[in-house]
Amino acid sequence: MTALSAAPSSAAPSSAAPSSAAPSSAAPSSAVPLPVAQVSGAPPAGAFTLSALRPDGGVLSTDAFHRWWRGRLDRPGFEVTRIPFDELEGWAFDPESGNLRHHSGRFFSIEGFELSTDGASRHCQPIINQPEIGILGILVKEFDGVLHCLMQAKFEPGNVNTWQLSPTVQATRSNYTRVHKGDDTPYVQYFREAHRHRVLVDVLQSEQGAWFWRKRNRNIVIQVEEDVEPHEDYCWVTLGQVRRMFPVDNLVNMDARTVLSCMPFHGPGEPAAGDAFTEALARSYGAADPSSGALRSPGELVSWLTEAKCRCEWKSRLIPLRDIARWSRTDDELVDQALQGFSIIAVRVAADNREVKWWTQPLLATRTTGMAVFLARPIDGVLHFLVRAQPEPGLLDLVEMAPSVHMVSGLDTLGAHTDHPLVLERALGGEGVRFDSLMSEEGGRFYHAQTRYKIVEVGEDFPVDVPWDYCWVTARQLMDLLGHGHYLNIEARSLVACVHSLW
Amino acid sequence: MTALSAAPSSAAPSSAAPSSAAPSSAAPSSAVPLPVAQVSGAPPAGAFTLSALRPDGGVLSTDAFHRWWRGRLDRPGFEVTRIPFDELEGWAFDPESGNLRHHSGRFFSIEGFELSTDGASRHCQPIINQPEIGILGILVKEFDGVLHCLMQAKFEPGNVNTWQLSPTVQATRSNYTRVHKGDDTPYVQYFREAHRHRVLVDVLQSEQGAWFWRKRNRNIVIQVEEDVEPHEDYCWVTLGQVRRMFPVDNLVNMDARTVLSCMPFHGPGEPAAGDAFTEALARSYGAADPSSGALRSPGELVSWLTEAKCRCEWKSRLIPLRDIARWSRTDDELVDQALQGFSIIAVRVAADNREVKWWTQPLLATRTTGMAVFLARPIDGVLHFLVRAQPEPGLLDLVEMAPSVHMVSGLDTLGAHTDHPLVLERALGGEGVRFDSLMSEEGGRFYHAQTRYKIVEVGEDFPVDVPWDYCWVTARQLMDLLGHGHYLNIEARSLVACVHSLW
Repeated sequence: MTALSAAPSSAAPSSAAPSSAAPSSAAPSSAVPLPVAQVSGAPPAGAFTLSALRPDGGVLSTDAFHRWWRGRLDRPGFEVTRIPFDELEGWAFDPESGNLRHHSGRFFSIEGFELSTDGASRHCQPIINQPEIGILGILVKEFDGVLHCLMQAKFEPGNVNTWQLSPTVQATRSNYTRVHKGDDTPYVQYFREAHRHRVLVDVLQSEQGAWFWRKRNRNIVIQVEEDVEPHEDYCWVTLGQVRRMFPVDNLVNMDARTVLSCMPFHGPGEPAAGDAFTEALARSYGAADPSSGALRSPGELVSWLTEAKCRCEWKSRLIPLRDIARWSRTDDELVDQALQGFSIIAVRVAADNREVKWWTQPLLATRTTGMAVFLARPIDGVLHFLVRAQPEPGLLDLVEMAPSVHMVSGLDTLGAHTDHPLVLERALGGEGVRFDSLMSEEGGRFYHAQTRYKIVEVGEDFPVDVPWDYCWVTARQLMDLLGHGHYLNIEARSLVACVHSLW
Repeated sequence: MTALSAAPSSAAPSSAAPSSAAPSSAAPSSAVPLPVAQVSGAPPAGAFTLSALRPDGGVLSTDAFHRWWRGRLDRPGFEVTRIPFDELEGWAFDPESGNLRHHSGRFFSIEGFELSTDGASRHCQPIINQPEIGILGILVKEFDGVLHCLMQAKFEPGNVNTWQLSPTVQATRSNYTRVHKGDDTPYVQYFREAHRHRVLVDVLQSEQGAWFWRKRNRNIVIQVEEDVEPHEDYCWVTLGQVRRMFPVDNLVNMDARTVLSCMPFHGPGEPAAGDAFTEALARSYGAADPSSGALRSPGELVSWLTEAKCRCEWKSRLIPLRDIARWSRTDDELVDQALQGFSIIAVRVAADNREVKWWTQPLLATRTTGMAVFLARPIDGVLHFLVRAQPEPGLLDLVEMAPSVHMVSGLDTLGAHTDHPLVLERALGGEGVRFDSLMSEEGGRFYHAQTRYKIVEVGEDFPVDVPWDYCWVTARQLMDLLGHGHYLNIEARSLVACVHSLW
């Protein structure tokens, strides 16, 4: 077999530079040598597992992490002020469409969308259109044989608490191609040339389908062996350390959660003795066989979601922002007249460690705290999680797997999010709560948007047979689905990361 | 464990009828019992394999099949006539947008789309917008322990040869909900209530990204045990019988090919003695281990496609048909002024076995025969196929895996489909040709659209290291990817079905 050359290509699609590394044993017969590209890597689950089993770090002890974190919090220098729309710089409402856009045509825009069924309009609202694929990347490196993640203390203007623990890089294409002419995003070069390194996770995932129009981000984890330049806002922690931070309100940000959810790992085989929940959770990771103990086969899960997509008769399209009914604009807010959903506001941000020193931007402000809950039930001793096939108007394929219950600002009026009473009763009740933490949605786009994430155990009195749009799946099946894009929505992925933190 | 009830639910999303089959051992504590739904089925690869190994049928011998087929061909009664647009009945150009639509707002419409990069328009053309999810379904049933597929002799107005072998059902939602008030599509009830039966395959797949706007079809295979009412246009054949029909030009239609490509089966383990190609092909199905002998791991394949999606800077959107530049409309044709691509025409169809007796409709007429080629190379004794990450403007996520070479009417002017010279040279050359057949694209939408499908073996003189947008994958990996939607485009799926016919 001709060995793959180690030389990667960062050539643009149209370039065809010859590779100097083409092995002579496979010299092409044509005079035109083929340039070389490759994806390197191997099943990374073992290395992630080892890291998850380390509640303390080889680089920073957990005490040292908290000292570092307090040091971040103590720094001055960030001010977020609400401003009228006409004080936005570089942003303006387009005179024709009414869309709120950046003069460069990049970053994102606030447009309208219309949802219709059977030709009749059912719902209009503003939506964030950000057609670029962003990078949510975590750099990992072995210290003493254990993977550590390079996590960032990152400020975002919409955060309720200024700083949150973030991936190494969270950047839109506009950011990292420096449309705003600021400093380079630190460490972004590793991800722009991903295939020079070992790629452990690399998959496109959706974001909030209630607020974003077909947004996709590249969730990517890259392992390096070389020395990485230190930076005061970044630290190396094990997966075990990160997972222990999940119960702290508003600490691990949304971008970190989605990337963490995509890191597969092995279960422990047979569980160590514990309570029934812990044992059922351990079996849910199904070390020996990906399908062991699962109620449904992987093919049945795909079929179930296919059925749900076929049943969804929504048609969703962008419309000019000025055409959305029942919304009105004041000097500093775009609101629905019933004040039920979210609003669009503008802020001025002054910061000292960001790519540019200050800026203004629009944000989507929520009125209520969201709620996202996984019901979890042992079935034959294996913990299963109740997912729901949930249409959301901004999703690329409209339907993805969502939490058992998801309450979100903005779709209240749509009437499509009616939960089954028993599911809702258990999700909101106080019994069997195994995880309960307030976490933030992306602070770069959403103003003070918090969601309460809960995992609630239900017992054998809760039926295994559920309505057609719900389905029981194991933790291992959720991890396997996360090897592909567009199966689990952003809230379900956050919850998967929360499940991992219980393991 | 609470047993799943066998009672399926065909309840509409909003209904919550209680199930009479809720097992008493899992009676819900709430007063509201949950309705029951389930997806039944099991890994079907074994049964498909057995059927593929039967070159003769248990119901119809291959001789009897050909007698039946000749009987279909001999029947009179179909006439397809080109007509001016103003003789279309129920179809008209919308005065505002110029789009060609059916008065019901259903079926499909001919609209325009614009492709832009970096804010600049690069390409406009007409495109078929058919937002409904159609059904491409094959009913299977065991006779003497061997699965047989219920295949249909189906007329489509765009077929070059009137009749082709088709799935049991190919129907749009408009068809099977009887918008045209014709007779019911035979056997469609099995697929409308899929989950009353055993579902063996069930996945949404794309169609031609050069001609369709985000078209998706449900590729579905359902196994029944009950007696199925016979129909003169349908017959039961084994997979082995169907596969032997692939070398016949224009016999197995596109809809049949895509469903057949999604049926997984097991390889033979160690190959029987044969030539090196046959042995390498057998190993490519990798019976023992899905990844055995593959150049890249499944995660690396997903990463490679993710990279390609991120590199694609196309923005694609629908525009009014009247706004597409460089196209003009005559009385009976919508053409690009350079006459390079396809055209839109109108036909009148008179038929006697279709759902309605006659009708008129638009069709997309191609000017040239397409070409779709898989290069196949043994790597370490395992046959690999060269796929390409190919952007196509009408695909939901823009990029899917395409054949090594795909030439298609309509995107000639786009300049994004430049093949690597060595790949092109081998694809077009006469050496190593293992499969070569002229096959039709969907005759319900495309007029005389034929594609030459080829599988060409290349030897060790052809490099393993390939440009970044190409990738070598095994047959088993292609089958595994086909368990999910939107990985392989329609031409690649047709070629996978052709590969199966060589096995």
